Amino acid sequence: MVIPSFDDEQRVLRALDEFLRIPSISREPSCAGDMRRAADWLASRLDFAGGEVVETDGQPIVLGEWLGKPGAPTVLVYGHYDVQPPGDLAEWETPPFEPGIRDGRIHARGATDDKGPLLIPVVAAESFLVERGELPLNVRFLFEGEEEVGSPSLPGFLRANAERLSADLVVSADGAMWRPSEPSLTIAARGLVGFDVVVTGAGSDLHSGRHGGAIPNPLRALAGILAGPHRPDGTVAIEGFYEDVRPVSENDRAALLVIPFDEEAYRSEIGAQALAGEPGFTALERIWTRPTLEVNGLRGGGDLTVIPREVRAHVTFRLVPDQRPAAVLEAVARHVALHCPPGVTASVLPESDGVPAYSIAADHPGVVAARDALRRVYAGVEPLVVHMGGTLPAASIMGAVLGLETVFFSFSSGDEGLHAPNEFFRLSRLREGLQAWAHLFELLAA
Amino acid sequence: MVIPSFDDEQRVLRALDEFLRIPSISREPSCAGDMRRAADWLASRLDFAGGEVVETDGQPIVLGEWLGKPGAPTVLVYGHYDVQPPGDLAEWETPPFEPGIRDGRIHARGATDDKGPLLIPVVAAESFLVERGELPLNVRFLFEGEEEVGSPSLPGFLRANAERLSADLVVSADGAMWRPSEPSLTIAARGLVGFDVVVTGAGSDLHSGRHGGAIPNPLRALAGILAGPHRPDGTVAIEGFYEDVRPVSENDRAALLVIPFDEEAYRSEIGAQALAGEPGFTALERIWTRPTLEVNGLRGGGDLTVIPREVRAHVTFRLVPDQRPAAVLEAVARHVALHCPPGVTASVLPESDGVPAYSIAADHPGVVAARDALRRVYAGVEPLVVHMGGTLPAASIMGAVLGLETVFFSFSSGDEGLHAPNEFFRLSRLREGLQAWAHLFELLAA
Repeated sequence: MVIPSFDDEQRVLRALDEFLRIPSISREPSCAGDMRRAADWLASRLDFAGGEVVETDGQPIVLGEWLGKPGAPTVLVYGHYDVQPPGDLAEWETPPFEPGIRDGRIHARGATDDKGPLLIPVVAAESFLVERGELPLNVRFLFEGEEEVGSPSLPGFLRANAERLSADLVVSADGAMWRPSEPSLTIAARGLVGFDVVVTGAGSDLHSGRHGGAIPNPLRALAGILAGPHRPDGTVAIEGFYEDVRPVSENDRAALLVIPFDEEAYRSEIGAQALAGEPGFTALERIWTRPTLEVNGLRGGGDLTVIPREVRAHVTFRLVPDQRPAAVLEAVARHVALHCPPGVTASVLPESDGVPAYSIAADHPGVVAARDALRRVYAGVEPLVVHMGGTLPAASIMGAVLGLETVFFSFSSGDEGLHAPNEFFRLSRLREGLQAWAHLFELLAA
Repeated sequence: MVIPSFDDEQRVLRALDEFLRIPSISREPSCAGDMRRAADWLASRLDFAGGEVVETDGQPIVLGEWLGKPGAPTVLVYGHYDVQPPGDLAEWETPPFEPGIRDGRIHARGATDDKGPLLIPVVAAESFLVERGELPLNVRFLFEGEEEVGSPSLPGFLRANAERLSADLVVSADGAMWRPSEPSLTIAARGLVGFDVVVTGAGSDLHSGRHGGAIPNPLRALAGILAGPHRPDGTVAIEGFYEDVRPVSENDRAALLVIPFDEEAYRSEIGAQALAGEPGFTALERIWTRPTLEVNGLRGGGDLTVIPREVRAHVTFRLVPDQRPAAVLEAVARHVALHCPPGVTASVLPESDGVPAYSIAADHPGVVAARDALRRVYAGVEPLVVHMGGTLPAASIMGAVLGLETVFFSFSSGDEGLHAPNEFFRLSRLREGLQAWAHLFELLAA
């Protein structure tokens, strides 16, 4: 067994410091050079695995492979080197691309999402080679640069390179542990499909004094269309919406219900006046196992006395296993057509094909190995098996294109400021992650 | 009888050219100097009536008076010298503050709203003095510089100067004839009261994946609140909303129903897919005689997967006679409180005290005189007696503070680009206006 040392930790931190200084913001066109620089840097870190940068139509993908164990399983390690924009710089205590360690945390944009967690399996693999001259199993690395913009190039890249990416299991260094208080493993994430509803009335904005009362108002129509699809009890009233929902098994439900979660503490933490949602479910069940429809944005008109010509809402569904994004989009389009009042036109404009939900069985051998690895690191504490309310597109894409299941094995924690100012990564989890990945490589080899 | 001559017309046009070159945009703080310059210019045009500029807390007011006919009635002539911002300069065929005459129209910002119409009674009065040495009645002039920003200083100014503004009737050079095809007199305008509905949920914007399903969504709540107050037939469902509405008399209704108006041509002109509104009323009745509730703006959230903390709608009511803005605001606040779903807070924030509807009896002596004056100018054509859907705050303010009724006697036409690019004023209406004001002075003196 290779136990990563203090030296290994220091090696990760030195590397991470360099890596975090590169502002690899995939959404920012002016960062194209930095994206390439980050990919090059990462490929050189993968020297021991023949690291290379492969161009795509979008951002480059970094690949590596060490296949020195014929007959042993092959894992495909996934992560992403792109980061979110820093947002308002004034909200950062220290500059986002000048990493610094304080209070046992390394602070920088990308520290926890996903540069820190991504470097852990790289260094863990390297440690095996340094100490033992070989890994216990075959490892491929795939690090993309478009996770923060919806991974548009990934499906095509996987299809074109399915052969050279063949593996038995994906292990993702992205995704986060639920919370910092105990280890956890994510076995399910909701899917996502988003669209705009655009409502159009007259040929131009019209003065609400000169015309109001005689013409339809697109804002009123939009309000009606958006108010309609929920019943008073919070369930979604769109015909067929729950049709494909796979019920949570009794076992899985029982496992969720014993997870310690203080709803009142949660309510207070987020500053909500009250929790809400479908009757008959706990808050965690609502977030983790139930599909939702949320209006995320409204815009139209302004503070003047105008009846605007065109108004718009942005709406997203979170999906659960067996719901198909295309079917949900069709159902919502039918619903909107049915409920659009006369005199205005309402269109549903999907923003993409959407991402189905992801799930892996709690007793999948990869999950069992991951739980075992965590137990070894966390002094025998049984990791929580959790779901997440958000969406993990890469897992769905890997499953759809390569037919592979994904084990999430990230040492990020949900409270580390992902996508927010003052993002950080706990050094304790970095240390735990190095040990856990070493265990995982051994356990998956067995 | 003083019949304004070609010379008088040329005098108005020369003056108007100077006046229009001053960008007196009340809403634009950088135009403060131009506002003062426009007021000074106008006061000097009123030399014959002792024109003076009076400071207020806001923009200066220009006053003048000729009181040389003791025993004769006194009219208070109202107008405004401030203009709307020009908006997008690229949409103007010629620069907004470089007036030019083409096709029998003078083009510039403020040409028709209200600098052209305002100069007409000034020059008409001057003509009497030049030709006859006196006017047939006493005239006061009051020209404000805040009409385009809601006349905030006017009520206080009127209260403080009620004595020196005493008169028998207000005649407004602001307001517009309904359309260019025939003369018309406006005897009613709807009132206005506006407010924001602000809905607040949790303590911050929250990720709709990590929290969606367990917390209330302020956008969904807002949609429900805004969809509620209308019945499917288009009537307003707010308790008590129609309570104070004074029914249109059978006579007035009959007069409206004979006004020639092609609803299909109107629909096509504004590019509406269909007209709409309360059953049992024509389109003109809906716009002129019925109160409305219109959502003018919505904003909150955006295109990201967020449940926003705070969202907002801008809403206005148009009111008809006897509806009190304060009572309507109270009714809507009760309605919103009643229909606000649990877990969010909804507040109604009025933007001002509002303006009640304005109306004057069709057989009021001032209206009768105005109709007579128009008949004399328009070769015996009977002017249409119309309402307007918009709001005329000055008339309501004059009524409330000075107890005076207002006759609208503007020679602007509704299609002359008020508040829009390429605003213009027809020279034919300028000519007709000079004659009509001269007639009106004589008729009101009788």
